[in-house]
Amino acid sequence: MIKAGVLGATGFAGNELVDILLRHPEVEIAFLSSASYAGKRYCDTCRSTFKMTLVTPEAVPYANADIVFLCLPHGASSAYAKLAIEAGACCIDLSADFRLRDLSIYETWYGQHQAPELLSQAVYGLTEVYRDSLVGAKLVANPGCYPTGPLLALIPWLKAGLIKSKHLIIDAKSGTSGAGAKPSEKTHFMNVHENFSAYNIGRLHRHVPEIEQELAGAAEQDIQIVFSPHLLPITRGILSNIYVTAIDGTSEQDLRASWETTYADEPFITLCAAGKLPELADVARTNACHMALTPAGREGEFIVTTAIDNLVKGASGQAVQNMNVMFGLEETLALTGGKA
Amino acid sequence: MIKAGVLGATGFAGNELVDILLRHPEVEIAFLSSASYAGKRYCDTCRSTFKMTLVTPEAVPYANADIVFLCLPHGASSAYAKLAIEAGACCIDLSADFRLRDLSIYETWYGQHQAPELLSQAVYGLTEVYRDSLVGAKLVANPGCYPTGPLLALIPWLKAGLIKSKHLIIDAKSGTSGAGAKPSEKTHFMNVHENFSAYNIGRLHRHVPEIEQELAGAAEQDIQIVFSPHLLPITRGILSNIYVTAIDGTSEQDLRASWETTYADEPFITLCAAGKLPELADVARTNACHMALTPAGREGEFIVTTAIDNLVKGASGQAVQNMNVMFGLEETLALTGGKA
Amino acid sequence: MIKAGVLGATGFAGNELVDILLRHPEVEIAFLSSASYAGKRYCDTCRSTFKMTLVTPEAVPYANADIVFLCLPHGASSAYAKLAIEAGACCIDLSADFRLRDLSIYETWYGQHQAPELLSQAVYGLTEVYRDSLVGAKLVANPGCYPTGPLLALIPWLKAGLIKSKHLIIDAKSGTSGAGAKPSEKTHFMNVHENFSAYNIGRLHRHVPEIEQELAGAAEQDIQIVFSPHLLPITRGILSNIYVTAIDGTSEQDLRASWETTYADEPFITLCAAGKLPELADVARTNACHMALTPAGREGEFIVTTAIDNLVKGASGQAVQNMNVMFGLEETLALTGGKA
Amino acid sequence: MIKAGVLGATGFAGNELVDILLRHPEVEIAFLSSASYAGKRYCDTCRSTFKMTLVTPEAVPYANADIVFLCLPHGASSAYAKLAIEAGACCIDLSADFRLRDLSIYETWYGQHQAPELLSQAVYGLTEVYRDSLVGAKLVANPGCYPTGPLLALIPWLKAGLIKSKHLIIDAKSGTSGAGAKPSEKTHFMNVHENFSAYNIGRLHRHVPEIEQELAGAAEQDIQIVFSPHLLPITRGILSNIYVTAIDGTSEQDLRASWETTYADEPFITLCAAGKLPELADVARTNACHMALTPAGREGEFIVTTAIDNLVKGASGQAVQNMNVMFGLEETLALTGGKA
Repeated sequence: MIKAGVLGATGFAGNELVDILLRHPEVEIAFLSSASYAGKRYCDTCRSTFKMTLVTPEAVPYANADIVFLCLPHGASSAYAKLAIEAGACCIDLSADFRLRDLSIYETWYGQHQAPELLSQAVYGLTEVYRDSLVGAKLVANPGCYPTGPLLALIPWLKAGLIKSKHLIIDAKSGTSGAGAKPSEKTHFMNVHENFSAYNIGRLHRHVPEIEQELAGAAEQDIQIVFSPHLLPITRGILSNIYVTAIDGTSEQDLRASWETTYADEPFITLCAAGKLPELADVARTNACHMALTPAGREGEFIVTTAIDNLVKGASGQAVQNMNVMFGLEETLALTGGKA
Repeated sequence: MIKAGVLGATGFAGNELVDILLRHPEVEIAFLSSASYAGKRYCDTCRSTFKMTLVTPEAVPYANADIVFLCLPHGASSAYAKLAIEAGACCIDLSADFRLRDLSIYETWYGQHQAPELLSQAVYGLTEVYRDSLVGAKLVANPGCYPTGPLLALIPWLKAGLIKSKHLIIDAKSGTSGAGAKPSEKTHFMNVHENFSAYNIGRLHRHVPEIEQELAGAAEQDIQIVFSPHLLPITRGILSNIYVTAIDGTSEQDLRASWETTYADEPFITLCAAGKLPELADVARTNACHMALTPAGREGEFIVTTAIDNLVKGASGQAVQNMNVMFGLEETLALTGGKA
Repeated sequence: MIKAGVLGATGFAGNELVDILLRHPEVEIAFLSSASYAGKRYCDTCRSTFKMTLVTPEAVPYANADIVFLCLPHGASSAYAKLAIEAGACCIDLSADFRLRDLSIYETWYGQHQAPELLSQAVYGLTEVYRDSLVGAKLVANPGCYPTGPLLALIPWLKAGLIKSKHLIIDAKSGTSGAGAKPSEKTHFMNVHENFSAYNIGRLHRHVPEIEQELAGAAEQDIQIVFSPHLLPITRGILSNIYVTAIDGTSEQDLRASWETTYADEPFITLCAAGKLPELADVARTNACHMALTPAGREGEFIVTTAIDNLVKGASGQAVQNMNVMFGLEETLALTGGKA
Repeated sequence: MIKAGVLGATGFAGNELVDILLRHPEVEIAFLSSASYAGKRYCDTCRSTFKMTLVTPEAVPYANADIVFLCLPHGASSAYAKLAIEAGACCIDLSADFRLRDLSIYETWYGQHQAPELLSQAVYGLTEVYRDSLVGAKLVANPGCYPTGPLLALIPWLKAGLIKSKHLIIDAKSGTSGAGAKPSEKTHFMNVHENFSAYNIGRLHRHVPEIEQELAGAAEQDIQIVFSPHLLPITRGILSNIYVTAIDGTSEQDLRASWETTYADEPFITLCAAGKLPELADVARTNACHMALTPAGREGEFIVTTAIDNLVKGASGQAVQNMNVMFGLEETLALTGGKA
């Protein structure tokens, strides 16, 4: 059995992660931490029946764990990653702290980094793309919720040189769990229900540099995206439309074939049949990423639509998928409990 | 007092229209029709306390009305427009039947037209743009819900030659009232709530030719848009992001100045301050159109965000605004009853 | 024109009240206060386009107002009522501070009272019941949101001796605006949406003594109710089921006749036809109270169902209705702007 | 492996059941039927990835199944139960057809019965109460969604003579999945969202005779309940308040002790600590029934609050729980996949 610890266990991603780990046949939970609720039983702090008592992040017995999941705020996470790794545990960080390889870009967006010396060993945990590097990794930077779908859709095409790196536009809509558990005016029921709005549009959202880093890596050239996040009046799910221009001579069939070749054997990627578009209800509470390709109606232009559950494939599900790969387990373990 | 009749009074647009007309100080309702509910009192067929008995569209006493509003399905509307006009009434058609000036384009999208001889006299009722032509008009084609916001945003810029006519992308999200009152799997609560999806994306939605016609008219050249409609789990409102490329040398300030000049005195257009984005809750149950301009973060590219209530500015509110103009009344009459 | 001031103008009840006052033909707003947002324009603090600058409650020029509305927290309100009245203004308090005539009961539930000397002159503002006392009143205690519907339903029957004063049970469900604008775990979208729960059931909710006071007054004997409030995942509305046992010999027809006699000419009371039950969507954004009477299926037992909009008839609409009566205006002024 | 067939597999209960069976380690699905979608793949008719082709109920190979689940409309179910049993399969009927032991009561509420000769062998599948009779049963009548929670709460007390059989009132609120998958005005998103209403209150709902039968059996005397069902704007869950009067001398502690004795070892029953009330979000997608006991604040009166997921414990989860008992399997198999 793998002994797993979770820091920041009472937030939405933490809670989702604990649920998944509890049904994982090869995992036992070593500890759960919470700065706010230390000393309380887990079941008394969030929607769970699990009775383990929470400890402070400072009191965590790292040496008892084979793997430590960090569900902490950006900036706060890296210091604990260091502690975990020094104690001999592997670490999957669900914050942004190890996603950006370029320290200066990180510090532009997030402020000072607490463990820059670890950056070079962090593997970006977009499982389908980085699977080989994940085997035996000590430190994994779990991807952001918004990046996951668009990256899975675009990376194969950029690697194959099928689409232009300019003009990419991502119009993305996220459920409210993405805004976190902290009560605020933004997340008050009265401001979300029967409402819909965009925020931080353009190149202002913190997931922009993460998306651009990974797209640039695939394309082997710099890429600037336009990115428009929105807040949906639902609990979970991200649906993204990506507006893409193909290289001259690239057909719809070429793009579709690229996806099919890349993802034929992937258990969590579903390519929608032509004419069918993903719905968030189809991916809710699953680790699936559904992708559709639609001609935009203008020569050479296409619309890609991706759908994931932001708390599962966009956070805790993908984290467990990464853990399964790191430890040589069946990749789908504990991740098929949602819809049939 | 203006005597107004409403055909198709029990659908969502019809019901919203009756509400507005009942609080209009210069209007009395002459008749209400419904094919399904003729013989019943209005208050027994939809959310209203108005007790007038519904008649069939065939039994309507057109000669009793100064103006007839048609809230009928596309294709069914034009035949009744003809009857109303022959009886001497003015007519505002909320269907698509008179929106497209080119008969062949109409018939490609909607099938055979029942009154093509009237097409040439129909005025497209985007009030802020066609106000002069509306005064004294006999037949007004009320704009579609999706077109209204984007057209109001883009027409001034295309007329002034400030933006490129290529590359326009509209990513639009509509509340469920836009799908109509007829029960279907698509509108079943279980399929809308906690769900979100796109439909008819590319150049497949019937509002595409309407938007393209009006943009082309403003730009004096053909325009092809990419248009992505979505269904939101809320009752009312349309939020659209429009991705725009400026002509070389056009600055954010130029675009903003164009809007300010055009809309300075418009009672229903609100230009958001830089950095502020519209929310659907701000326009719900009002005749307002909120517009924001945001730099996209790439040289020369911008994001326009527009918000309207699809049942008010996108349908019945704009219809009454048009009636007010046609009859020389104060344009805001009966249209300021929503939020302060 | 009546000059009206509003203290606590940026909360949900305050915002609703400002909306209503702005469309009132006989009112002009003299001032708006907010402890949190003083110095800001009203339109920058909540969903409104009204540009008046907010002042602190301390800086309010009471002498400029004919009437002051208090939308302040329980306990905080009474001190300002005193200031307003001393300055010569009338006052309608939307908090609980003047609802309970017995000081000791008030202090049991709410703590020390700041202006007990005013209690004796306060009129309980359930308009339909206390209309005569409201004419010329200086201080009105606007009823609580939960009490309004059940009191309107039961008071006529208790006055006429038609129902037993024992066994009354009220099972009530309220939209989330009733929980106030302050962000909290309870009002976080993630805890309200797709959820439903009861709270403070039994005789624990602060509206219990208010309901019991008014029922006892009508029955001329002490009454204990069982009261079960719930939080609904909607923005506005309260639907209550009241379980009632009739005095032997009282028929359904007797009960219905009592309502009809009492409420025949009331503009805001709708008695549902037999077999029809109220829905919250029918009363949303109106000052109406819908009531239905249904045989419970056991000898002598009945179910009363009442529906109101908690922010309108349950707060700000009833406050304006009271103001209209106090100042001798048409009682429905500014209160018919919702549904037809 | 147990071979299971499902008739009516594409409705909400059927879909939920297929999900559960697919994750059941001891079950393989033998066939799925649908009158409407026969010939299509399951995954093309509802939210599932399961690719089995649907057959008509007439073409079902009953002999291939060890157990047949009937998710068919009331009245239509019994004829197929007969076919299944004659072919040698066990049968769990999720409709009402075998719940009422008295044929005349059944026919009063549902019309003519298609297989009355089977009534006497049907076991009422409220697992915790009828577990012993379920072992080896051939025909199980799965309880209705509304009855499940209140019966589990009240039966122990009635058996022990702790509460009065008169005055029982159940005020129950159900998510919209309870209204079925068929599109209708009632289930249109626009009529459910931001709405709330009661229906069939008194003794008019078809679940009344079912609840009364089981309560009367426990009390060994006739019982009449008052029952008020409501439609909640959420997808799943039933929260019920039950108003109870204790026998003189029965204390809160007596009632609580009765529950604790009865349910100490039940895996799916959670007794809430004093002062804590169940929330629907806590039971969503689980087979749990949460129960709370609260003093009503009047001498000898109590409020019981129960919460279940209507599609799981109120339908398909309980059906699988029953199957597990019938076949001697671990009772929790496939039923612990929801929340931790």
